[in-house]
Amino acid sequence: MCPHALIPYKIVNPKTRLSCVLSQEEREAFAHLMLEDVIYAIKDANCSPVIVGTELFDSEDVQVTISDADLNQTLNSILPQSAGEILIIMADLPLANADAIRRVITTKNDMAVVPGRGGGTNAIYIKEPNRFHVDYYGMSFLKHIQIAKEAGLSCEVIDSFRLHTDIDEKEDLVELLIHGTGKSRVFLEELGFYLSAEKGRVIVERKGKKAEVV
Amino acid sequence: MCPHALIPYKIVNPKTRLSCVLSQEEREAFAHLMLEDVIYAIKDANCSPVIVGTELFDSEDVQVTISDADLNQTLNSILPQSAGEILIIMADLPLANADAIRRVITTKNDMAVVPGRGGGTNAIYIKEPNRFHVDYYGMSFLKHIQIAKEAGLSCEVIDSFRLHTDIDEKEDLVELLIHGTGKSRVFLEELGFYLSAEKGRVIVERKGKKAEVV
Repeated sequence: MCPHALIPYKIVNPKTRLSCVLSQEEREAFAHLMLEDVIYAIKDANCSPVIVGTELFDSEDVQVTISDADLNQTLNSILPQSAGEILIIMADLPLANADAIRRVITTKNDMAVVPGRGGGTNAIYIKEPNRFHVDYYGMSFLKHIQIAKEAGLSCEVIDSFRLHTDIDEKEDLVELLIHGTGKSRVFLEELGFYLSAEKGRVIVERKGKKAEVV
Repeated sequence: MCPHALIPYKIVNPKTRLSCVLSQEEREAFAHLMLEDVIYAIKDANCSPVIVGTELFDSEDVQVTISDADLNQTLNSILPQSAGEILIIMADLPLANADAIRRVITTKNDMAVVPGRGGGTNAIYIKEPNRFHVDYYGMSFLKHIQIAKEAGLSCEVIDSFRLHTDIDEKEDLVELLIHGTGKSRVFLEELGFYLSAEKGRVIVERKGKKAEVV
């Protein structure tokens, strides 16, 4: 078993909700390193990563598909053409590891979904992609459960905080500094980010920068 | 196998970070229903719940231990006296289910830890409680990993968003309304809380109340 793992990826000006603590240049570098962490985990779980980008993208050893359509249109044009099983996984999951991905792709059901924090969908695994379509944005997790139901597909919800934790906001950086083991965590540390446990709550601070950071 | 599951529980004025959306009376009722949801999951996983309270507490069928010491002192006085394996699990995990708890208590290691969001520890399972002590508050997850290491205990980190998601703040209510199946979710709905997906992000709103709610 070696499913293709589609990874939607935005190159220019990603992760705008981190603007309060990272410049655009830093956000672009950070997003790219999170992508690399996700690719590492995907390969470690014996899947074949395919980056689904919105523009040209330099990648040494990973296949890249370019589309200027929106995420739903792009993925829904790929799914019916896919002969084998497909994993769709987001690029902002630097806590992903092979164990968590294996739990997704070894489901006994027709498909599996991993909810993201705040109602999103962080990963979808589909054994027969032509029987499913995606509907991202908003409460996509509940939408995907409903789409599976209407298609008569049994669907397992995978219980993983590593795949649940998408890095969108400054508070999420706490999770990366605690549980991360890859390049994006090292990058944050090199930028001067560190954990602080003042007043009983753990926050992220950045050396040489003031309280703008969390 | 039927480990005791200790559940620390604060009765009066709990969950103060939810004060912006719930009155003290509502918070006390809500905390109690979250506790009931946790107890249901614990029993469903064949563990014996024991509430560790700070004051007298009316409970029909669950054993209650009262202590006026702080959480660490209380638990660290109980652990050395415990003959068998012990699970310590927080009362604010209404997404807990039997599957997730079973993954904790069936670890092949000497113990298992479940990280909470933001550096905390939401559950600890210890096969030989007299070899471990707890150190809650602040970055307790990293402290507990370190204590296990120093005691020579192998420790599995359980990857579960259901046990990772402690309900502390208004944003966390989104998770409960999406993934909850127990009494605390019903309580929120009866109070008028509902999900809204405006501007691409999912938030919680409350009927009849204004924007104070998230």
